[in-house]
Amino acid sequence: MFTEHLKAIVEGVEGAIACSVMGFDGISVETLPKDMPEAALEMDMQAAWVEFANLMSQAKQTAETLKTGKVAELSINSEKVITLLRMVNQDYFLVLGMLPTGNYGKARYVMRITAPKVAKEL
Amino acid sequence: MFTEHLKAIVEGVEGAIACSVMGFDGISVETLPKDMPEAALEMDMQAAWVEFANLMSQAKQTAETLKTGKVAELSINSEKVITLLRMVNQDYFLVLGMLPTGNYGKARYVMRITAPKVAKEL
Repeated sequence: MFTEHLKAIVEGVEGAIACSVMGFDGISVETLPKDMPEAALEMDMQAAWVEFANLMSQAKQTAETLKTGKVAELSINSEKVITLLRMVNQDYFLVLGMLPTGNYGKARYVMRITAPKVAKEL
Repeated sequence: MFTEHLKAIVEGVEGAIACSVMGFDGISVETLPKDMPEAALEMDMQAAWVEFANLMSQAKQTAETLKTGKVAELSINSEKVITLLRMVNQDYFLVLGMLPTGNYGKARYVMRITAPKVAKEL
């Protein structure tokens, strides 16, 4: 049921590799494409996402004790991949892996408008 | 000695609030402006940066065990402030706090070109 939203992200962002709705426990609810592309497999993107889920969870908890407001988005940019995480609700977030050469601004925009749509279905 | 580089960031990015060269221990080497603006004080930005330094440190360590490559940049976007962290070397990073309405693309660009300049002086 999240497929259409994930599809909108993967197809709407140049350089997108794969996208997922994940829980803060690091378990993916749904991922697109179903068969992870080779680039994602080579980087073991799934393993990275589990680690990043942990970082996102910490950022969320930290923010509760800070005066900077709720964390809406986290971005971890490494040599081979840009990972964008967007809060959906208290338990779930969207994660997108994209090429460093991809359209980052578009990615942030599409993730921002898609998150509330996903939230409605959870 | 880092002042000119920090100045280039703070003055070059619309919406920039404050910028710092920090160690992964959360201790600031130099911060600009010297007197934190009111917006930064209200949010207790310094406290947030110490926490984010910790996240950056974890992201760095995590990346070493992952196949996604070294972490170059971390961005934590909350309701009131966007925090951009850019790796300088193994021990130091640049951190910029900016308004959510600021020029994020410009900020990423300026941080990317400034980091190697700061590295040379460390």
